[in-house]
Amino acid sequence: MKKEQKAADNPAAFERSSCPITNVLDLFGDKWTLLVIRDLVLGKRRYQELIVSPEKIASNILADRLKKLEDAGIITRQAYQQKPARYEYRLTQKGEELQPILEAIITWGLKYYPGTTIFPRIERY
Amino acid sequence: MKKEQKAADNPAAFERSSCPITNVLDLFGDKWTLLVIRDLVLGKRRYQELIVSPEKIASNILADRLKKLEDAGIITRQAYQQKPARYEYRLTQKGEELQPILEAIITWGLKYYPGTTIFPRIERY
Repeated sequence: MKKEQKAADNPAAFERSSCPITNVLDLFGDKWTLLVIRDLVLGKRRYQELIVSPEKIASNILADRLKKLEDAGIITRQAYQQKPARYEYRLTQKGEELQPILEAIITWGLKYYPGTTIFPRIERY
Repeated sequence: MKKEQKAADNPAAFERSSCPITNVLDLFGDKWTLLVIRDLVLGKRRYQELIVSPEKIASNILADRLKKLEDAGIITRQAYQQKPARYEYRLTQKGEELQPILEAIITWGLKYYPGTTIFPRIERY
Protein backbone atom coordinates (compact mmCIF):
# COMPACT_ATOMS: atom_id res chain seq x y z
CA MET A 1 0.00 0.00 0.00
CA LYS A 2 2.80 2.37 0.95
CA LYS A 3 4.58 1.55 -2.30
CA GLU A 4 1.47 2.28 -4.35
CA GLN A 5 0.91 5.65 -2.70
CA LYS A 6 4.53 6.54 -3.28
CA ALA A 7 4.25 5.44 -6.89
CA ALA A 8 1.08 7.45 -7.49
CA ASP A 9 2.79 10.57 -6.16
CA ASN A 10 5.88 9.97 -8.23
CA PRO A 11 5.97 7.43 -11.07
CA ALA A 12 9.78 7.58 -11.00
CA ALA A 13 9.54 5.83 -7.66
CA PHE A 14 8.65 2.44 -9.19
CA GLU A 15 11.22 -0.15 -8.22
CA ARG A 16 12.15 -1.49 -11.64
CA SER A 17 10.10 0.41 -14.23
CA SER A 18 6.70 2.02 -14.82
CA CYS A 19 5.48 -1.06 -16.75
CA PRO A 20 2.33 -2.55 -15.17
CA ILE A 21 3.53 -6.10 -15.89
CA THR A 22 6.81 -5.46 -14.09
CA ASN A 23 5.08 -4.15 -11.00
CA VAL A 24 2.67 -7.08 -10.90
CA LEU A 25 5.62 -9.48 -11.21
CA ASP A 26 7.30 -7.75 -8.28
CA LEU A 27 4.32 -8.95 -6.26
CA PHE A 28 3.47 -12.30 -7.90
CA GLY A 29 6.58 -13.24 -9.81
CA ASP A 30 7.38 -16.42 -7.95
CA LYS A 31 6.25 -20.04 -7.88
CA TRP A 32 3.94 -19.75 -4.87
CA THR A 33 1.98 -16.51 -4.51
CA LEU A 34 -0.59 -17.25 -7.23
CA LEU A 35 -1.11 -20.74 -5.80
CA VAL A 36 -2.18 -19.19 -2.50
CA ILE A 37 -4.58 -16.97 -4.48
CA ARG A 38 -5.81 -20.05 -6.36
CA ASP A 39 -6.56 -21.83 -3.07
CA LEU A 40 -8.47 -18.83 -1.72
CA VAL A 41 -10.48 -18.64 -4.97
CA LEU A 42 -11.26 -22.35 -4.54
CA GLY A 43 -12.69 -21.61 -1.10
CA LYS A 44 -9.86 -22.34 1.32
CA ARG A 45 -9.62 -19.89 4.20
CA ARG A 46 -7.48 -21.31 6.96
CA TYR A 47 -3.77 -21.88 7.31
CA GLN A 48 -4.32 -25.58 7.92
CA GLU A 49 -6.25 -25.81 4.65
CA LEU A 50 -3.65 -23.86 2.68
CA ILE A 51 -0.69 -25.82 4.02
CA VAL A 52 -2.01 -29.20 2.80
CA SER A 53 -2.25 -28.33 -0.91
CA PRO A 54 -0.55 -30.90 -3.14
CA GLU A 55 2.36 -28.59 -4.02
CA LYS A 56 3.52 -28.90 -0.40
CA ILE A 57 4.23 -25.25 0.27
CA ALA A 58 6.70 -24.76 3.14
CA SER A 59 5.23 -23.19 6.26
CA ASN A 60 7.62 -20.21 6.23
CA ILE A 61 6.84 -19.49 2.58
CA LEU A 62 3.09 -19.67 3.19
CA ALA A 63 3.36 -17.32 6.19
CA ASP A 64 5.51 -14.92 4.16
CA ARG A 65 3.10 -14.87 1.21
CA LEU A 66 0.04 -14.38 3.41
CA LYS A 67 1.74 -11.41 5.07
CA LYS A 68 2.75 -9.96 1.72
CA LEU A 69 -0.77 -10.37 0.29
CA GLU A 70 -2.31 -8.77 3.38
CA ASP A 71 0.14 -5.85 3.18
CA ALA A 72 -0.78 -5.41 -0.50
CA GLY A 73 -4.51 -5.28 0.30
CA ILE A 74 -5.23 -8.49 -1.61
CA ILE A 75 -6.43 -10.53 1.36
CA THR A 76 -7.84 -9.77 4.78
CA ARG A 77 -7.08 -11.70 7.96
CA GLN A 78 -9.69 -12.21 10.67
CA ALA A 79 -9.36 -14.15 13.91
CA TYR A 80 -11.89 -16.97 14.24
CA GLN A 81 -10.42 -18.30 17.49
CA GLN A 82 -8.44 -16.97 20.46
CA LYS A 83 -5.84 -18.85 22.55
CA PRO A 84 -4.26 -19.86 20.39
CA ALA A 85 -5.18 -17.19 17.86
CA ARG A 86 -6.27 -18.64 14.52
CA TYR A 87 -7.12 -16.65 11.43
CA GLU A 88 -9.23 -16.87 8.33
CA TYR A 89 -7.98 -15.30 5.13
CA ARG A 90 -10.28 -13.94 2.43
CA LEU A 91 -9.76 -12.19 -0.86
CA THR A 92 -10.62 -8.50 -0.99
CA GLN A 93 -12.20 -6.94 -4.07
CA LYS A 94 -8.67 -6.26 -5.30
CA GLY A 95 -7.85 -9.91 -4.78
CA GLU A 96 -11.03 -11.16 -6.47
CA GLU A 97 -10.06 -9.12 -9.51
CA LEU A 98 -7.01 -11.34 -9.98
CA GLN A 99 -9.29 -14.10 -11.25
CA PRO A 100 -9.03 -13.11 -14.94
CA ILE A 101 -5.25 -13.54 -14.65
CA LEU A 102 -5.71 -17.02 -13.18
CA GLU A 103 -8.26 -17.85 -15.88
CA ALA A 104 -5.91 -16.79 -18.68
CA ILE A 105 -3.14 -18.90 -17.13
CA ILE A 106 -5.50 -21.88 -16.79
CA THR A 107 -6.60 -21.62 -20.45
CA TRP A 108 -3.01 -21.65 -21.67
CA GLY A 109 -1.91 -24.26 -19.13
CA LEU A 110 -4.68 -26.73 -19.95
CA LYS A 111 -3.79 -26.44 -23.63
CA TYR A 112 -0.02 -26.77 -23.34
CA TYR A 113 0.30 -29.11 -20.36
CA PRO A 114 -1.87 -32.03 -21.44
CA GLY A 115 -3.09 -33.97 -18.44
CA THR A 116 -3.46 -30.97 -16.15
CA THR A 117 -6.87 -30.49 -14.56
CA ILE A 118 -8.57 -27.67 -12.68
CA PHE A 119 -8.76 -28.33 -8.94
CA PRO A 120 -12.28 -28.58 -7.47
CA ARG A 121 -13.81 -25.89 -5.29
CA ILE A 122 -13.96 -26.59 -1.56
CA GLU A 123 -17.43 -27.26 -0.23
CA ARG A 124 -17.89 -25.30 2.99
CA TYR A 125 -20.66 -26.13 5.42
CA MET B 1 8.87 -30.39 -24.57
CA LYS B 2 10.21 -33.56 -23.03
CA LYS B 3 8.43 -32.75 -19.78
CA GLU B 4 5.10 -32.25 -21.55
CA GLN B 5 5.35 -35.54 -23.38
CA LYS B 6 6.21 -37.29 -20.14
CA ALA B 7 3.28 -35.58 -18.45
CA ALA B 8 0.83 -36.54 -21.18
CA ASP B 9 1.83 -40.17 -20.84
CA ASN B 10 1.59 -40.09 -17.09
CA PRO B 11 -0.08 -37.22 -15.23
CA ALA B 12 1.61 -38.37 -12.02
CA ALA B 13 4.85 -37.21 -13.61
CA PHE B 14 4.09 -33.49 -13.07
CA GLU B 15 6.74 -31.92 -10.92
CA ARG B 16 4.56 -30.32 -8.25
CA SER B 17 0.94 -31.13 -9.10
CA SER B 18 -1.46 -31.62 -12.01
CA CYS B 19 -2.80 -28.04 -11.62
CA PRO B 20 -2.37 -26.05 -14.84
CA ILE B 21 -1.50 -22.87 -12.89
CA THR B 22 1.27 -24.70 -11.03
CA ASN B 23 2.84 -25.97 -14.23
CA VAL B 24 2.69 -22.54 -15.87
CA LEU B 25 4.34 -21.03 -12.78
CA ASP B 26 7.11 -23.62 -13.02
CA LEU B 27 7.90 -21.99 -16.37
CA PHE B 28 7.04 -18.30 -15.74
CA GLY B 29 7.00 -17.99 -11.98
CA ASP B 30 9.81 -15.48 -11.67
CA LYS B 31 10.37 -11.76 -12.09
CA TRP B 32 11.91 -11.90 -15.57
CA THR B 33 10.48 -14.48 -17.98
CA LEU B 34 7.24 -12.63 -18.75
CA LEU B 35 9.21 -9.41 -19.31
CA VAL B 36 11.17 -11.13 -22.07
CA ILE B 37 7.83 -12.25 -23.56
CA ARG B 38 6.53 -8.68 -23.22
CA ASP B 39 9.52 -7.34 -25.14
CA LEU B 40 9.04 -9.88 -27.92
CA VAL B 41 5.34 -8.99 -28.12
CA LEU B 42 6.39 -5.32 -28.39
CA GLY B 43 8.53 -6.20 -31.40
CA LYS B 44 12.03 -6.67 -30.00
CA ARG B 45 13.93 -9.55 -31.59
CA ARG B 46 17.62 -9.24 -30.84
CA TYR B 47 19.65 -9.78 -27.71
CA GLN B 48 20.97 -6.20 -27.87
CA GLU B 49 17.39 -4.93 -27.91
CA LEU B 50 16.28 -7.16 -25.07
CA ILE B 51 19.24 -6.34 -22.83
CA VAL B 52 18.54 -2.57 -22.83
CA SER B 53 15.01 -2.74 -21.38
CA PRO B 54 14.54 -0.40 -18.41
CA GLU B 55 14.38 -3.22 -15.87
CA LYS B 56 18.08 -3.85 -16.57
CA ILE B 57 17.97 -7.61 -16.88
CA ALA B 58 21.34 -9.22 -16.22
CA SER B 59 23.00 -10.80 -19.23
CA ASN B 60 23.19 -14.27 -17.66
CA ILE B 61 19.49 -14.15 -16.69
CA LEU B 62 18.46 -13.06 -20.19
CA ALA B 63 20.52 -15.85 -21.79
CA ASP B 64 19.03 -18.38 -19.37
CA ARG B 65 15.44 -17.28 -20.02
CA LEU B 66 15.89 -17.27 -23.81
CA LYS B 67 17.24 -20.83 -23.63
CA LYS B 68 14.38 -21.92 -21.38
CA LEU B 69 11.76 -20.34 -23.67
CA GLU B 70 13.32 -21.94 -26.74
CA ASP B 71 13.38 -25.35 -25.01
CA ALA B 72 9.71 -24.89 -24.11
CA GLY B 73 8.76 -24.13 -27.73
CA ILE B 74 7.68 -20.59 -26.91
CA ILE B 75 10.30 -18.81 -29.01
CA THR B 76 12.43 -19.72 -32.01
CA ARG B 77 16.01 -18.61 -32.56
CA GLN B 78 17.36 -17.87 -36.03
CA ALA B 79 20.82 -16.65 -36.99
CA TYR B 80 20.80 -13.34 -38.86
CA GLN B 81 24.59 -13.02 -38.93
CA GLN B 82 27.65 -15.32 -38.86
CA LYS B 83 31.09 -14.61 -37.32
CA PRO B 84 30.17 -13.71 -34.74
CA ALA B 85 26.88 -15.58 -34.76
CA ARG B 86 23.91 -13.35 -33.86
CA TYR B 87 20.34 -14.50 -33.46
CA GLU B 88 16.82 -13.19 -33.73
CA TYR B 89 14.18 -14.49 -31.38
CA ARG B 90 10.50 -14.69 -32.28
CA LEU B 91 7.41 -15.95 -30.54
CA THR B 92 5.92 -19.19 -31.84
CA GLN B 93 2.16 -19.71 -31.97
CA LYS B 94 2.42 -21.15 -28.45
CA GLY B 95 4.24 -17.98 -27.39
CA GLU B 96 1.76 -15.65 -29.10
CA GLU B 97 -1.01 -17.35 -27.16
CA LEU B 98 0.50 -16.02 -23.94
CA GLN B 99 -0.80 -12.56 -24.83
CA PRO B 100 -4.15 -12.95 -23.00
CA ILE B 101 -2.16 -13.63 -19.82
CA LEU B 102 -0.14 -10.45 -20.33
CA GLU B 103 -3.33 -8.52 -21.10
CA ALA B 104 -5.02 -9.70 -17.91
CA ILE B 105 -1.92 -8.73 -15.92
CA ILE B 106 -1.82 -5.31 -17.62
CA THR B 107 -5.50 -4.65 -16.84
CA TRP B 108 -5.01 -5.41 -13.16
CA GLY B 109 -1.64 -3.66 -12.99
CA LEU B 110 -2.86 -0.42 -14.58
CA LYS B 111 -5.73 -0.31 -12.09
CA TYR B 112 -3.77 -1.09 -8.94
CA TYR B 113 -0.43 0.54 -9.70
CA PRO B 114 -1.47 4.07 -10.58
CA GLY B 115 1.12 5.77 -12.73
CA THR B 116 2.10 2.63 -14.66
CA THR B 117 1.86 2.85 -18.45
CA ILE B 118 2.00 0.33 -21.28
CA PHE B 119 5.31 0.39 -23.13
CA PRO B 120 5.14 1.35 -26.83
CA ARG B 121 5.63 -1.13 -29.64
CA ILE B 122 8.95 -1.07 -31.45
CA GLU B 123 8.77 0.28 -34.99
CA ARG B 124 10.81 -2.01 -37.25
CA TYR B 125 11.95 -0.95 -40.68
